[in-house]
Amino acid sequence: MDIGTVNSLSYEDFVDVFGNIVEKCPLVAAAVWSQRPFSNLAQMETAVNDFIDSLTVSGKEGVLRCHPCLAGRELHSGSLTADSREEQRQAGLTSLDPAEAEHLQRLNVQYKQRFGFPFVICARLNDRATIEHRLVERLANEPTQELRLAIEEVKKICRLRLQSLVAWANKL
Amino acid sequence: MDIGTVNSLSYEDFVDVFGNIVEKCPLVAAAVWSQRPFSNLAQMETAVNDFIDSLTVSGKEGVLRCHPCLAGRELHSGSLTADSREEQRQAGLTSLDPAEAEHLQRLNVQYKQRFGFPFVICARLNDRATIEHRLVERLANEPTQELRLAIEEVKKICRLRLQSLVAWANKL
Repeated sequence: MDIGTVNSLSYEDFVDVFGNIVEKCPLVAAAVWSQRPFSNLAQMETAVNDFIDSLTVSGKEGVLRCHPCLAGRELHSGSLTADSREEQRQAGLTSLDPAEAEHLQRLNVQYKQRFGFPFVICARLNDRATIEHRLVERLANEPTQELRLAIEEVKKICRLRLQSLVAWANKL
Repeated sequence: MDIGTVNSLSYEDFVDVFGNIVEKCPLVAAAVWSQRPFSNLAQMETAVNDFIDSLTVSGKEGVLRCHPCLAGRELHSGSLTADSREEQRQAGLTSLDPAEAEHLQRLNVQYKQRFGFPFVICARLNDRATIEHRLVERLANEPTQELRLAIEEVKKICRLRLQSLVAWANKL
C-alpha cells in the first residue's frame, strides 16, 4: 500500500488496516485519521507519536497495559494478536525451555509489581538474551524513567508495524 | 461485583472486565486502573469521564470512530461487540424492515460524510423513532457542537455498561 492509498481510506478501512500498530489500541489509528493527508510514512508516524505523547501519564500506562507479557499467558493460551505472536517468535520467545520460561515469568511478575504495567520491548530488535538482560536492568529504574523508556519501545514496535504495512518508497 | 472487588483486581483482570465500557477502547479501562482505589462507582465513572475529556480533539474523534454504525455493517455481519448488539436490540434496531433500514443507513452515510465519525447515541435510552429523529436533528449541528454531544452519549453508554458490571449498592 502506498501513502496515496493510505490517505484515500475511509476511517473504517483505516482502522481495519492500522488498528493494531499500537497493540490493542485501535483508538490510536482512529485518532490519527483526523490528520490525513500524510505526505509520507514519516509524517504518519509522527502523528502517531504525537498522539501517544499527548496522553496523560495514566493514558501512557494504559497503552502499556494493553500489551501482553512477553512469553506470558497470552502466548500459552494462543490469545496473542498476530503481530505480537510473530514478533515474539522472531525473538525466540516461543521456543524457551521450561527453566528459561519460568525465569522470564518470574522477572515479569517482579516488573509488573514494581511498575503496574508489563515489560514492553521491541522484540524484533532484540534476541531473547538481550530481552532478559534489559528486563533485569530496567527493573532498577525509577518509575518515571521507566514509563518514558517503555513508551519509546511502543513507538519502535509501531514504526516496524507501520513499515510492514506501507510501501518502502513512501517512507521518506 | 462490589467496589472492593473492583479495587482488588489486577490490571489484566480489570481490563478483561471493563475493557469495553467505552466501545473497543480497552485503553480507557487500562488507563483508569491507575486511579484506584475508587470509593464508589461514581468516582470510577468520573475517572473514566476525566480521561475521555483529557484526550485531544482527534482523540475524542477516535473514540467515536471505534463505535459501530447503528443498524450498520457490523450488525449485519455479526461482528458487533456483545454490548452493542444487546443495546441495538433493545432499541429495536435489529428488527427494522428493509425500507427503515435503508433510510437509517442513508442518514448514517450523510452523518459520517459531514463529521468524519459515526452517529453515536445511547441506544438503551432511546427507541428507534427517537434515534432517527435525533440523527436528523444532529446532522444540522456545527462540528464542534456535534463532537461535544456525541462524546456525552459515549459517557451515557459507559455509565450504563458500568452499572451493569458493578453492584448497585456501591454506586453512591
